[in-house]
This record gives sequence, C-alpha cells and structure tokens, in this order.
Amino acid sequence: MAEWIDLLDPTEEELRGALPREIHDRALEQLLTPARHDDEPRPRLEGHDHYVFGIFLVPICVREEDRVFYQEVDLIATRERLVTVRKTPELGHPFDPSPVRDSAEAAKATRAGYLVYLLVDLIAEYFLDLIDALNDEIDELEDGIERWTAGQIRARISELRHDLLHVRRTVAPTRDAVHQVVDRRIDVGAGPELLPREIELDFADVYDKLLRAMDGLDLSRDLLSSARDYHQAKIANDQNEVTKRLTVIASVLLVPTFIVGLYGQNFRRITELAWGFGYWWSWGWILLTTALQLGFYRWLGWIGGDPLGRPKLPPLRKLDPRSIRGRRRASST
Amino acid sequence: MAEWIDLLDPTEEELRGALPREIHDRALEQLLTPARHDDEPRPRLEGHDHYVFGIFLVPICVREEDRVFYQEVDLIATRERLVTVRKTPELGHPFDPSPVRDSAEAAKATRAGYLVYLLVDLIAEYFLDLIDALNDEIDELEDGIERWTAGQIRARISELRHDLLHVRRTVAPTRDAVHQVVDRRIDVGAGPELLPREIELDFADVYDKLLRAMDGLDLSRDLLSSARDYHQAKIANDQNEVTKRLTVIASVLLVPTFIVGLYGQNFRRITELAWGFGYWWSWGWILLTTALQLGFYRWLGWIGGDPLGRPKLPPLRKLDPRSIRGRRRASST
Amino acid sequence: MAEWIDLLDPTEEELRGALPREIHDRALEQLLTPARHDDEPRPRLEGHDHYVFGIFLVPICVREEDRVFYQEVDLIATRERLVTVRKTPELGHPFDPSPVRDSAEAAKATRAGYLVYLLVDLIAEYFLDLIDALNDEIDELEDGIERWTAGQIRARISELRHDLLHVRRTVAPTRDAVHQVVDRRIDVGAGPELLPREIELDFADVYDKLLRAMDGLDLSRDLLSSARDYHQAKIANDQNEVTKRLTVIASVLLVPTFIVGLYGQNFRRITELAWGFGYWWSWGWILLTTALQLGFYRWLGWIGGDPLGRPKLPPLRKLDPRSIRGRRRASST
Amino acid sequence: MAEWIDLLDPTEEELRGALPREIHDRALEQLLTPARHDDEPRPRLEGHDHYVFGIFLVPICVREEDRVFYQEVDLIATRERLVTVRKTPELGHPFDPSPVRDSAEAAKATRAGYLVYLLVDLIAEYFLDLIDALNDEIDELEDGIERWTAGQIRARISELRHDLLHVRRTVAPTRDAVHQVVDRRIDVGAGPELLPREIELDFADVYDKLLRAMDGLDLSRDLLSSARDYHQAKIANDQNEVTKRLTVIASVLLVPTFIVGLYGQNFRRITELAWGFGYWWSWGWILLTTALQLGFYRWLGWIGGDPLGRPKLPPLRKLDPRSIRGRRRASST
Amino acid sequence: MAEWIDLLDPTEEELRGALPREIHDRALEQLLTPARHDDEPRPRLEGHDHYVFGIFLVPICVREEDRVFYQEVDLIATRERLVTVRKTPELGHPFDPSPVRDSAEAAKATRAGYLVYLLVDLIAEYFLDLIDALNDEIDELEDGIERWTAGQIRARISELRHDLLHVRRTVAPTRDAVHQVVDRRIDVGAGPELLPREIELDFADVYDKLLRAMDGLDLSRDLLSSARDYHQAKIANDQNEVTKRLTVIASVLLVPTFIVGLYGQNFRRITELAWGFGYWWSWGWILLTTALQLGFYRWLGWIGGDPLGRPKLPPLRKLDPRSIRGRRRASST
Repeated sequence: MAEWIDLLDPTEEELRGALPREIHDRALEQLLTPARHDDEPRPRLEGHDHYVFGIFLVPICVREEDRVFYQEVDLIATRERLVTVRKTPELGHPFDPSPVRDSAEAAKATRAGYLVYLLVDLIAEYFLDLIDALNDEIDELEDGIERWTAGQIRARISELRHDLLHVRRTVAPTRDAVHQVVDRRIDVGAGPELLPREIELDFADVYDKLLRAMDGLDLSRDLLSSARDYHQAKIANDQNEVTKRLTVIASVLLVPTFIVGLYGQNFRRITELAWGFGYWWSWGWILLTTALQLGFYRWLGWIGGDPLGRPKLPPLRKLDPRSIRGRRRASST
Repeated sequence: MAEWIDLLDPTEEELRGALPREIHDRALEQLLTPARHDDEPRPRLEGHDHYVFGIFLVPICVREEDRVFYQEVDLIATRERLVTVRKTPELGHPFDPSPVRDSAEAAKATRAGYLVYLLVDLIAEYFLDLIDALNDEIDELEDGIERWTAGQIRARISELRHDLLHVRRTVAPTRDAVHQVVDRRIDVGAGPELLPREIELDFADVYDKLLRAMDGLDLSRDLLSSARDYHQAKIANDQNEVTKRLTVIASVLLVPTFIVGLYGQNFRRITELAWGFGYWWSWGWILLTTALQLGFYRWLGWIGGDPLGRPKLPPLRKLDPRSIRGRRRASST
Repeated sequence: MAEWIDLLDPTEEELRGALPREIHDRALEQLLTPARHDDEPRPRLEGHDHYVFGIFLVPICVREEDRVFYQEVDLIATRERLVTVRKTPELGHPFDPSPVRDSAEAAKATRAGYLVYLLVDLIAEYFLDLIDALNDEIDELEDGIERWTAGQIRARISELRHDLLHVRRTVAPTRDAVHQVVDRRIDVGAGPELLPREIELDFADVYDKLLRAMDGLDLSRDLLSSARDYHQAKIANDQNEVTKRLTVIASVLLVPTFIVGLYGQNFRRITELAWGFGYWWSWGWILLTTALQLGFYRWLGWIGGDPLGRPKLPPLRKLDPRSIRGRRRASST
Repeated sequence: MAEWIDLLDPTEEELRGALPREIHDRALEQLLTPARHDDEPRPRLEGHDHYVFGIFLVPICVREEDRVFYQEVDLIATRERLVTVRKTPELGHPFDPSPVRDSAEAAKATRAGYLVYLLVDLIAEYFLDLIDALNDEIDELEDGIERWTAGQIRARISELRHDLLHVRRTVAPTRDAVHQVVDRRIDVGAGPELLPREIELDFADVYDKLLRAMDGLDLSRDLLSSARDYHQAKIANDQNEVTKRLTVIASVLLVPTFIVGLYGQNFRRITELAWGFGYWWSWGWILLTTALQLGFYRWLGWIGGDPLGRPKLPPLRKLDPRSIRGRRRASST
Repeated sequence: MAEWIDLLDPTEEELRGALPREIHDRALEQLLTPARHDDEPRPRLEGHDHYVFGIFLVPICVREEDRVFYQEVDLIATRERLVTVRKTPELGHPFDPSPVRDSAEAAKATRAGYLVYLLVDLIAEYFLDLIDALNDEIDELEDGIERWTAGQIRARISELRHDLLHVRRTVAPTRDAVHQVVDRRIDVGAGPELLPREIELDFADVYDKLLRAMDGLDLSRDLLSSARDYHQAKIANDQNEVTKRLTVIASVLLVPTFIVGLYGQNFRRITELAWGFGYWWSWGWILLTTALQLGFYRWLGWIGGDPLGRPKLPPLRKLDPRSIRGRRRASST
C-alpha cells in the first residue's frame, strides 16, 4: 500500500518532510533547483540503495510564439512511497499528473512501482500523441505544397523541423532510461524489488511505445526532408517556367516592334508604303508572326501547360500482397 | 500434431476460448485492441514460459489515394496449438493467410513451430515482392526522366520515397524479431522446444530473406537519390539552356530593330535614304547580321543542339571478369 | 587535507619540486611542452599507480578576428596533493581557476578528489555557458534571416559553424574522459581511493552536464542547418521573384513601344494619323494595355505581394498534453 | 587429396551424385534453384557438421545496355571433395573458374580447403580489378568534366553511381562471410579441420583484399560525390555567366536603339537634324557608347574571361614529409 | 641490443639473409612484391610467434600533377633485430627513415621495440604535419573565397577534398593497427615481451597523435564543407544580383526608348511637336524618368550596394569564460 505525495515547486522543508531520510544530497539539490529555460536537466532514472530517482521532461510547443518549453517531473520512489516533484516552467504551466491518479484508482493499484509505471506510461503516451499531431501537420504541409506560397512553406518547414528537433532531444534519453528498467538494471539496492517482474513487463510496454515514438520521429524527419526536396525541386522548376515566359514575351513583342520599325524607315522608295492597303499589310505580318510564335511556344510547352502529346505516366501498381504475390517469380520465367 | 486456429477481429470470449490459459494479460489486451490507423504496434516476437507471442505488420500502399495502411497479424504459439489473430485495418482489408494453409498441407507439416515459420516466411516473401515491385517502378522512373514533365517526376519521386519509408519502418523490426529466433534467444521456457534446430534453420532462411529485403531497400533508396540528383542536375542545366535561348532571341531581334531605327532618323542628309535600292540595302544588313549571329550561336552550341566538334565521350568498359582480369597488374608494369 | 599547487607555465625545476616523485617521464614532458597553436593535445584522464593525470582544453572564440584558441589546463592528483599546470596560449591569456578556489573554500572541501571534481565541473559549466551563448546567437540569426542581407547571413552562418566545430572537437574527448571516472575505470592504482564513491556521484553530475553539452551541440548544429536551408530556399525563391519582376517590366514597357512604333510608320494611308484626337487615341491604347497588364500580373501575384485569394495557411496546433491527450485515439474512432 | 567437381546448372540427379549424403535439404534446394534476375541470394558461408556451404556472387556490368547481372557460384566443401555449382544467369554467361584450376595445378595444392581459398581469392581479386576499373573511369570523368556536355556528365555520373551501388551490395556480405573464416567461426563440425591454421592465414589475406575493396568503394563513392559537386558548382556558375552575357547584350543593343529613336522624333526644331554631319554625329554617339560599355563590362570580367587584375591563386604546397617535416613546430615558434 | 637492418627494394636473397628464419611465406611474399600504384596493401600490424610484422603507408600529394602516391614501409621486428623494407613507388621516391636513426642515437635506445615506436611515431608526426598543412590551405581558401574566381575556388575545393580523402584512407587503418598495441593485443608469442609496458606507454602517445590526426581530418572535412556551402550560397546570391542588374538596365533603357518612340509618331496633331522647346521637353522627361528609376532601384538596393537603412548585424559575443560565466543562470532569473 504505497502513498503518493505530489509536490509542486516545493520548498526545502516540504521536500525534507516528504522524502525518505536516505536521500542523497545531490538528488535533493536537483529537486530544489527551480526550472530554468535552456538549462533543463537530462531525463534519467537512477537506482539507489533505498530509492529510485527519476527525472522526466515533457516538451510543450507554443506555436504562436515559435517557442518550446519543457515541463519537468521528478520522482523519488521507495517501496512505501512515491514522491513526485513538479516544477513550474519559467514560461508556462506545470505538468498535470491527474490522469495517473485516475488510472491508479481505476486499476485499484497501489504499489509504488505500478504508480511509477503509470506516470512513465502517461509521458510515453504524450510523446505518441505529440508525434501523431506532428505527422498530421506534415501531411497537411504536403497537401498544401502546391497551393501555399513559397514563404509560407519555407516557414512551415522550419517550424516543424524545430519542433521535431526539440522533441527528439527529449525522447531519446527517456527511452534509454526506460530501457534500463526493462534490462533489470534499475531497482532499489536492498530488500524486495520495487519493480518486480510483472511491472517490468509493463515497462516493456512503455519501452515499446518509446521505440515507436523514435521510429515515428525518424519517419517524420524523413517525410519532412521529402517535402523540402519536393519544394526545392518545385522552386527550381518554377524558375525555368518564369524564364520561359520571359523568353516568350520578349520574342512575341520584339518581332512586331521590328516590323513597325521597318515601315518607319525614311527611304525614298519603299514599295509597301505607297500601297493603299499598306497599313493592313503591316498588321497582317504582325498578326501572322505573332500567331506562328504563339503556336510554336505552345507546341514546345513553354506556355499554356505541358507540351502537347507528352507521354502518359504509367500508373503506380497497387502494392497489395494479393496482387503482387508470386509476381517476382513470374516476371523472371 | 498442432491445431491452427485463425481468428479475424475476435471478441474477448472467442479469444479466451482459443488461447492457452497461461496467457499474460498484456498480450490479451494487445490481441483485443482493434487496429487503429497511425497507432500500429511494433513488430516483435517474445518467448514466454508456455507460449511464443508475435506481432507482425504488412504494409499495403494504396497508390491512387497516396495512402499506406498496415495489416496486423498476431500469433500465439504453444507446442499444441497456433492461434493467429488478424485485424481488419480501418481503411482496408485484413491479411490473407491462405497460402500458409496451402503450403502446410503441401508439406504435410503439422508442428506448430513449422506453421509459425510458414507464416513468417510468407510475410518475408511479401516484403521481397514488394521491394521488387518498387525497384521496377524506380527503373521506370529512370527511363522516363528525360521524357516526363518535371511535375510528374517530382510527384513520382515523392510517392516512391514515401512508400520506401513506410516499408522500411516495418521491415527493420521484423528482421530484428526473426534474428532473435536464429540466435536461439526465443522459445517457450519450459519443456521440449517449440522451435527445434531444424526449424531454426528454416528461420535462418527467412532471416536471409529479410536481410536481402533490407539490402534491397537500401539499394532502392540510393537509386532513388541518384534519380533525384539526375533530375535536379537536368533542371539546373535546362535553366541554362532557356537563358541561352532568351539571350539568342534578344540578340537576334534587337540588332534589326536598331538597323531599322537607324534609317528612321530624320537627319537632313543620310546618303542611304536617297538611294533607289536603299530599302534593300537595309534588308541586306538585317539578313546578314541575323545570319552571322545565328551561325555564331550555333557554333557556341547555344541553339540547335550540342556545340560543333564536341569531344566524344570514351565508352564505358564492360566490367566482366574475363575482360578486366589481370588488368590491374598489367596497367602498373 | 590535500594541498593545491597551481603553476602557470612552470619551468622544469618548479615542476619537479611540485610533483610527486613517481611521475612518468612522458607526463612530465607533456607538462613542460609550451602550448602551441594547432598542436593542442587531446583532452584525457589517465589513472597511474600513484597519481591521476589529466589534460583539459577550453576553447576561446575571439570573434572579431574569426579565430579560436585553446587554454590548456593539466592536472596531477595524488591523495595528498593536486598540482594544476596552466599554459599561456600563444595568442591569448591562460585559464582562470579562481572560481574553483572560491567553491572549495565555500564548501570547506579539501580532499584532492573533490578539487579535481570542482575543476572539471567548472570546465563543464563553461561548455554549457558556451553552447547557450551559441544558441542565443543562432536564435538571433533566425530572427534576422528575413532582414539582413544575404552576405551578412552567409558570413554569420559560416562563423557560427566554425565555432560549433571547434567546440565539438573539445567536448567529445572531455566527455569520454569523465565517463571513465563514472565507470570507475580511473583511479590511483594503490591504496585508498582518490575518487571514492561519493565523488564519483559528483562526477556523474559532471558527466550529465557534458552529455547535455553534446546534446546541445547536436541541436545547435541541426538548428544551424535548418537556418541555412531556410536561407537557401529564400534565395532560390528571391531569384524567381526577381525574374518575375523582369518579365513584368519587359512586358509592360515593350507593348507601348510597339504602339508608338505602329504610329511611326510611314504608310501613305493610316486612318488614325489623320484623326484630330489620334495622339490621344494612341495614349489611350498605351494606358489601357498597361493597366490590363498590371492587373493581370497583380492577379498572378508576380507584383505587389502574394497572389490574390491565396489559401490561408491552417494554424499550427498547440502541442500541449492538455490539448492533444487522447487525440490520437479519438481521431481513429 | 581432394577431388573437385564443377557443375554448371546441374539437374537434381547430377547434384545428388556429386554431393555428400549428409547435405541439408535447404542447401540442396538452393543449389537447384535456377538463377533469377533480381532474386539473387545473399553471399554467405555456413559451417555444418560434415561440410561447409557457400554462396558467392560476381556482378557483371553490361554498360552498353546499362544493366547489371550477377553470376552465382555455390560451393559444398568436405575434407575429401569440393563441389562447385555455377548457374547461368538469365541475361548472361556463367562464371569462369578456370583460373582456380590453373592456380591449383601451379601450386600442386589438392586440399579442399585450399581450393576454397583459391576460389574466394579469385572472386576477391575480381572485386579489386572491378573497383580499379571504376576508379579509372571516375578519373576519366574528372578530366572530362570541363569538356563534355552537361547531359553527358550527368548520364556518366548516374551510370557510375549505379555500378558502385550494385558492386557494394555484393562486396559487403562477401567480406562478412570471409571474416567468419578468419575469426575461426566457420569449419566442419566434426573431425580434423577443413580450414586449418595455415589456410586461415590465406583467408586473412583474402579478407584484407576485401577490406581494401570496401575502402576502395568508399573512396570511389566520395570521389564521385566530389565530381558531382564540382559539376553542380560549374552549372550554377555557368548560369551566372550566361545571365551576364544577356545583360551585356541587352545593354549594348538598347543604347543605340535609344539614340536612333532620339533622332527619329518629329519635333519641329531639333538642331542636330539640320547639321550636314548629323548622321555621323549620331553614329559617333552610337560607337562611343558601345565602346565605353564594352570596356566597362570587360573590366567587370563579364565578357572576355576573368576580371582584369584578378588575384593570383597561391600554389598548393607539395605534401611530402621531406618538405613539411617540422613545419608544424617551426610555424608556431 | 637490437640491430637495425634497413633494406630498399631488396631482392629475395637480401631479404632471406636479413630476416629471421621463422618468417611466414605470405609475409615474405608481401615484402618482395614491388610497390604498384593503386594496388597498395592496407596498413596493419600483426603479432606472430617469433616476430611482429607491420605494413605502413605514407601518402605524398604531388599537387602540380594532381596526383597522390603512397610510400610503403614494412617492418619485421624480433627481440634481436628490426628489419625495415622500404619500396620505391612507381611514381616517386621512397620513404626516408633517417630521422628515426637520429632519434635512436639521440636517445641511445637500442631495443627493437623502441625502434618500432620511433618509426611509427615518425609516421604519426608526418600525418599531423600533413593535416596541419591541409588546414592552412583550407584557411587560405576561406580567405580567398570572396576574391578568387568561381572556377579557381571550385578547383581548389576539389583538390583539397581529394587530398583529404586519400589521407583519411591511410590514417584510419594505421590508427587501428596502433590501437592493437595499446590494447596489448600485439606482441611476439613466445618469451619476454618485444613491446613491454613502458614502450606501450610510448605507443599510447602515438595512438593519441593518430586520434588527433583523425579529429583533425574530421574538422578539415567539415571546414571544407562549410567553405563549399559558403561558396554555393555566394553563387546563388550572385545570380540574384546579376538578374537585378539586368532588370535595372532593361527598365532604365526601355523607358527613354518609349518616350522617343512617342514623339516619333506621325499623327497630324501632336501639340508637343510644334513647341520650340519640344526637343528639350522630350529630354526632360527622359532624364527625369531615368533619375527617378535609378533612385528607386538604389533605394531597393538593387544597384550600388546594400539597401539603404539596412539593419546593423549585432556583433558576435566574445566566447571567453570570463565574459560568459554565469551568463546562463543570470539570463534566466
């Protein structure tokens, strides 16, 4: 029957009252240090003789202000007691542990080790939610890449990349800490186990979630790179298109300018000038050359969309076992 | 003589009826969770005291909708019984295990371990088919890169890259799971082996297939990067070509415009204006300068294809042992 | 009760007077070698039979001169005595160890091992301060990337990258050296420990700081790459914008030039020339075509900002556990 | 005295006649499977109780058709007998083992293990020849990069990159297989060794060749990247040069056009028009402004080669120990 | 008292006379093989029963010819004798071991192990000198990147990158070989040690030098990448600048051309044409529009340097512990 004491920004006396006596000075100091922006500790779990000491961080991305802050949750677990210490970040609100309490009551579980599991699981769940939300936004970016302006896409890629980097920085050490529990390298040193075999199985489940979070982050990073490459290729191609337009405009406007210049010459004898329909003769050449040029550039595909008669792209195959099974063998016999 | 029970989206009662009694709660929970998009578990194999528990995923790429979903197949194997649990994905159809049944009947094999092997082998075969189909499409992309439009190529590269990333995400943990069997790290804890030596040799074969799948994925990724680089280099070069065309057009059209402007001046005494053949004199200069310019730009290679007299590319050597054997030594003596 | 002897660029006699007799020749030689630019030793810690020998480097970036130099601090620690040897760099001032002395006095700590800890901790703190300062400057760069000129940004990215590379070169081996203490692989060979368990816990704290420093460096490098990519995308896009401007200008100026050329022709009969309001007719066409063109290019978004009616970018979600918790599950049911 | 049986695309009966009885079914199946394009097995070596089983692949690049196929050579070695099974690729000719026979006769060596060594050594030698031939072609590419057209270079880089990727795919697992022999992890399980100590030394030599092959491949890949970067930088710079030419042409042709337009105005009183030498006055301005412009652009270096008075590049130092020895120390004292 | 025999391109008899009898055939063969370009062995050290066998390579970059060759130095060390075999490269001069002889005489050291150390130390020193010389040239490149032409910079980057790649190829296996000595994994198999503890300390020093060489190579590679990125960003930006110039020229020259065309029209009644000061009226408009345009483009920063009123770049902080110490804490409180 373990007791759970949850402290928010505790003073030294509060802490000393709640913690077991054997607590190490350095851990105490860490628990007392107020949260400082850009000076967050590294997530970790440590087994000591009489207690397990843990530090966890949860990243919060405040998108409007393009800012990330970290909520710190520390824990000291003995067999009889779990003390969690939450710190209010300089620029935001502290972590909310109420779902853990709800789950513990629902499961009627009271062992300290199980409470630790519930807390770490909540954090892992949050990471999965976070990466899922990021992936949705990357999907949105990919959908918008043909419609949004270059400046918008550039800024969005940069924001998502920042968020991924800040999240990755936190997930990796959290995963390493949980891995130590799964490997049975962390427990209290003396007496019956704080984290017995069945709770370690629970931790294996958390570890699996954190592995999925890392896989998901890797996938997100690669999808974002893919979106960036797509965007860069589009800009490079747009440049070609704009230059083609410029060429068409220069060519289409300079030829009539030459023609009217031709009949602006002051030679004594230019036959066409004397014709009654001379003016329309000039217009005729202007319209004819312009039509021919426009037709030519349309045929090249420099204006009005893709070149005429462009090859059709073969459709992509559906990659379903039912349709491709045995294909490999079939195609080589 | 093992019994094979195949369940599709089972209810809790169905499951409890089919599974051995010693099953762990967490595994049961995993088997009951319906498949959720973007929340797939990680492929894995676990040895427990009385059973082996496995989760496998098969990616399906629905190309028309640029979408990937995963079919989940879970298994619980004891010495007497193999229970497979298939889940219907939210956005598609479940995995079809009938080839395993056919193979098992053909081989008259009934041991549970062998059935597990057949199932994992089917999945590995699917991965090889999948990567083979992807490679064929990358080949097609490379062939089309000179003919298709930039937008088509850009989109195709992006689609293939997405598919590769989603497949890779599944192959790597599957390979790790099978590696544990080859290393004899997975089996039931008590009694005779579920996966004896000869079945482990079969698993070594599956492991080899998954290694080839990973090698193939790496090759695909590099070939795709190569295609992307080729495409980028082509766009950069096309930009040069378009700007050269623009320069030629500006140059070829501005010189005649200057000439006709010259004879449009109103000076009192311009000798040429008084000549009877003055108009043809003007045309003569126009045609001469244009011909000279076109000849010059053709010689530069800015229009009409490559520069004249460009160096021939030396042919690539045939890299066949019969032709290059001993070449290395010969060339240095 | 350990004695601390601090030597600055000592002579051989001074050194021999201060050091324990058992010191190895090679260590002595290292302590006597004057600091040479571009020939700094590698940071390390070595346990010998009677003493612990350490070399540490602190990078100083002199930004005005785009130059980095390293301050070398060596130490020889026995149970009775700590000898630190500081070297004056060729191009700067030596390391200042006074904060260690202050901390030691404040903590009333006199054991040699604790003094070693204080020294290494001071260096680790400096690395954290350094990376923090670098991160602030990267933030500044990101804020300025839309306002500063391309040359300024290019130079700033290059300077920050140099600094990161030079700092990384020093942090990595320092971290490895401290890791050996944490792993209990370094101590004097004989007699009671120089670095007992409680000091090793202190070193674990230093190691954690150095790990955070490495994480911070990785983050800085990725943020800098992100800033570089952003800048490159901006330049590529600016190129498009400039070419669009050029196209607009060519198009808007060449049409009126054609019109005035049209009425500069010398045909015998051009109806408009005889009209009394002919000149204003010409002006009318000039103004009309110019207005139409400007309107068209404005609609395209080639001048005057983004295209009209461009799609709004969906806002980024706030990534806070309170708002996204359960989102993953909810979105798939 | 070992017997060597070499089989080309054997039938099942031929195989069963030649192989030892204890052969595993899976190996037999592998030996019987005909070579299929894009479904090659992975190179490997396996030690079994009574025999060693090996699979090797040799890549052949058919450059004219931009195609790669693999020759498969399998081997079963017992102490008394070496059976090699060669397969005819779908698209080419099988491997030619005659050099092994020649070497074996020359060395009068008849032990099965030594024959295995000779075969693997032949394959390793082929890899070295192959990489050497690739490196020669990369050298050729680098020499031609200033002379060939962009399309030629782009295609050549892509072809060489494909060849490197296909070779790498085969060398890496071959190296791993041979490493197992050097580490004494592969041999027949029972009785005297098939691969005794002195043959393992021979294998160490083969392993060294394969390591050199991998080093060579890495070097080739980096040299090819370097060539690609060089080419990209050249294209980017050529773009600048072309745009500079365009600017010069526009500027040089538009100023005379303005001048002749100036004197084409119909004002009542333009003094110059009345001058007898007015026409030459106009030509004078045209020639003067053109000469000034050409001089200005030549000075800028936009036409006619590099800017005048460009700084000389300092020569690269010769990096020879005789010339740079002690330089480091000298430069800092 | 060990004897040192130094042989240059020895014949088989010379070698057999100098070497211990127990030498392995393969080593003898290696020592007799003449040095062949592009077929250098891999640097290594091997311990055998009665001797230690080593192969070392020293890269020489002949910059004028853009060529690298390798000097090979092999050694056979027993307790009584050190035999070094130097080979003359096909394209250069052999390695000069005289500094080793001088050092040995200076140190009055005659043990074979110490001679081996001196030789390896000389090679390590050469690598450090080499990397130092390369770094100086990269510094020079960075200084010149704003002054030299693009072609010069491109070629210089390519040359330096080649040199780095060729040096890296040799340093890495040399470091691995020396690491084996430090780890006490290499020595003669029987009798007293060839490389006793105190010589191993010397080798630790050589290992440290080789580690610094690798660190230095990594730094060089990153600095070279940084220079390449800087150069690419500059070219991309220059392209923008050139296109801006073109736009300014087109705009500034086309407006006057329009104005003079306007007054070249032949309408019956154009008021301005009849004015006595009409010609100056036209000039007035030409000068006014040109001045306004030049002013506008100057304000934009498209000509004449950076935009007016551009923001000042904040200066970089000096990263010195004295100035930033405590900054981190201060900034967050």
